[in-house]
Amino acid sequence: MHTGIITLTTDFGLTDPYVGAMKGVILSINPQVRIIDISHQVGPGDIQAAARLLTETYSFFPTGSIHLGVVDPGVGSSRRAIGVYAKGHLFVGPDNGLFWPILSQDPDARIIHLTKSVYFRPHVSHTFHGRDLFAPVAAHLSAGVDLHRMGTVITDPVAFKIHTVQQGTHTLTGRVTAIDRFGNLITNIEENVLNRFLGAHQPLIQLGGRVINTLHHHYADVPPGEPLALFSSSGHLEIAVNQGRAAECLGIEEEEIHQLEVEIERI
Amino acid sequence: MHTGIITLTTDFGLTDPYVGAMKGVILSINPQVRIIDISHQVGPGDIQAAARLLTETYSFFPTGSIHLGVVDPGVGSSRRAIGVYAKGHLFVGPDNGLFWPILSQDPDARIIHLTKSVYFRPHVSHTFHGRDLFAPVAAHLSAGVDLHRMGTVITDPVAFKIHTVQQGTHTLTGRVTAIDRFGNLITNIEENVLNRFLGAHQPLIQLGGRVINTLHHHYADVPPGEPLALFSSSGHLEIAVNQGRAAECLGIEEEEIHQLEVEIERI
Amino acid sequence: MHTGIITLTTDFGLTDPYVGAMKGVILSINPQVRIIDISHQVGPGDIQAAARLLTETYSFFPTGSIHLGVVDPGVGSSRRAIGVYAKGHLFVGPDNGLFWPILSQDPDARIIHLTKSVYFRPHVSHTFHGRDLFAPVAAHLSAGVDLHRMGTVITDPVAFKIHTVQQGTHTLTGRVTAIDRFGNLITNIEENVLNRFLGAHQPLIQLGGRVINTLHHHYADVPPGEPLALFSSSGHLEIAVNQGRAAECLGIEEEEIHQLEVEIERI
Repeated sequence: MHTGIITLTTDFGLTDPYVGAMKGVILSINPQVRIIDISHQVGPGDIQAAARLLTETYSFFPTGSIHLGVVDPGVGSSRRAIGVYAKGHLFVGPDNGLFWPILSQDPDARIIHLTKSVYFRPHVSHTFHGRDLFAPVAAHLSAGVDLHRMGTVITDPVAFKIHTVQQGTHTLTGRVTAIDRFGNLITNIEENVLNRFLGAHQPLIQLGGRVINTLHHHYADVPPGEPLALFSSSGHLEIAVNQGRAAECLGIEEEEIHQLEVEIERI
Repeated sequence: MHTGIITLTTDFGLTDPYVGAMKGVILSINPQVRIIDISHQVGPGDIQAAARLLTETYSFFPTGSIHLGVVDPGVGSSRRAIGVYAKGHLFVGPDNGLFWPILSQDPDARIIHLTKSVYFRPHVSHTFHGRDLFAPVAAHLSAGVDLHRMGTVITDPVAFKIHTVQQGTHTLTGRVTAIDRFGNLITNIEENVLNRFLGAHQPLIQLGGRVINTLHHHYADVPPGEPLALFSSSGHLEIAVNQGRAAECLGIEEEEIHQLEVEIERI
Repeated sequence: MHTGIITLTTDFGLTDPYVGAMKGVILSINPQVRIIDISHQVGPGDIQAAARLLTETYSFFPTGSIHLGVVDPGVGSSRRAIGVYAKGHLFVGPDNGLFWPILSQDPDARIIHLTKSVYFRPHVSHTFHGRDLFAPVAAHLSAGVDLHRMGTVITDPVAFKIHTVQQGTHTLTGRVTAIDRFGNLITNIEENVLNRFLGAHQPLIQLGGRVINTLHHHYADVPPGEPLALFSSSGHLEIAVNQGRAAECLGIEEEEIHQLEVEIERI
């Protein structure tokens, strides 16, 4: 049940030798494996952003794919290294919440504390487990080694605090989780949750002092430069501006998004 | 006549999950295909820049390669999705002019309006046809499905306005089409067009108030810091500065390049 | 003794067609080869940075891998094109010092001046040897052509000035060679050199007016925000700040790093 595909999601950027070294280590163990870059542009140490990238990409790959996530501000400390089997996919990385949004959705998820050093590089540095521990483990998994042979089962992975949508009698309150490259604001409000809340009503959406009161289907449903609400390709409520950048039009900075609430009423 | 190679040219950047999702969709349909990134750094919605990248790279790949181009500001509107067979290669993307510079050069080009949803993902979102329509179509093509089975032939693709070189009695007038990473100014004046215009004469090249009156072969033909004109690797007139950045030396900003004329006289 | 792997290290960036064209040329010659991006984000013309990337990544790949390095400010001048066999790997690129740190470590390194145009593209441009000369040579090597058939042996490659560590009676003086994406300062002082110098003593490390007097193992050995010295994953002395950016905390700019000395005394 392995595909020979390893995806990479890291905060290593593309100017340092770190990503190249990881790819070399993987190919030295399994020359046949296919390495697919998801992103190396995660903000340094931004576990939340990396978790979102993993959550929103893994399921499109063939089941049995291996997803290597290395955003690891606690490298070399006592944080554990884990391998996870969840939702039909394998995940390898630090136990810092990176895979929590995925494994918490799978009651049958199995989490292995990676302890068998025979699957690591001979010398494991204190500052680069991506190269010395996670990459070789992923490569051995891709070559068919069973995850269970690589360590011991644990049941207390580090949880990642996920902002949940709050539903009151009259309001639904969510948050902006990301601004994408097009300036679109992606929220944590899922389509089915919003539809259930609205019933036959229309929404009154408030965000950063702006009000939007219709849900549209396409960007082109409103004139260029106008804001609109629609469902994103990941199935979440999205605030966009047709042919414009919602974040700029609404005066919202990257840094403040995690404080930004979206409030919805029924009208 | 397919190679198992899919190239990707998008404006999705590398911080969002969009590129990863597309790669996953492709590999889920054809696990054997080879995915080659051309660029994901096209400016958001910059069809012209993406068209240039496609035009200047596709022909170096083996014939039968599949080139996926997703710069799609009109996603979800009534713009058509197309597959194109031209110059021995296959192209998949929105019908917004992206492939026009290539297909307009091939009188035998065939253009298919992609309508057969059996080759799409089961649910096609309104905002991400790259993942839900173009990626699966490209993957099915790479697996050997004939493009003609995927829709209906059309003959009126959206044309892309290409700035052509104007030839007067005494002057040849072209434009700057790009500033590359090295600050070189690439124009739309082709080597053979310029040579035919010049005959046995030397050129007097005027650009942004500067005059250059010799054509050189190598950057190193002039002292460091000096501007020069030569033919670029794509066979176009290029204004460069040896070991410097022509755009900066000549005080030219990225935004103004498409307004920038290059005038050539014979001397 | 070839692996079918070609790695790419260039200063071409990801917005121009240059990298895509090179990949196409390679795949047109050897459709089976696997292309692995190390980086295309080397600063334009920064041979030193590219040499560091090559030096710190090549050895992690399977022996017999081919490493294409194209940072080539002298393209089209009389600088030679070379292929190098050293340390069990093959290297292809301009003779400008790019491979010097690797080949100077291997007394048996063989350097071939690439002169056999049968292994180049039919027309070699004056400005893009990456596409027209180096990429096809690498592809032919990956297809099994012997490097010795591609030109003539030379023994005077361009040397790259490597800053060596200066050892005085009481001090060891090195330099910062890079600031990585996390703001860590990587020096040229190797672990075994420092340990030999220190013997049973502790170090007193001075850098940019700051003093650090202990060597630690992990970032987490000091409180968040505190600077520390440790050995980097490449085995060099590194100055870091736990959960912070050493470069910023110490007020060091990217541009000045090559002037920046690190002085170590024994205490």
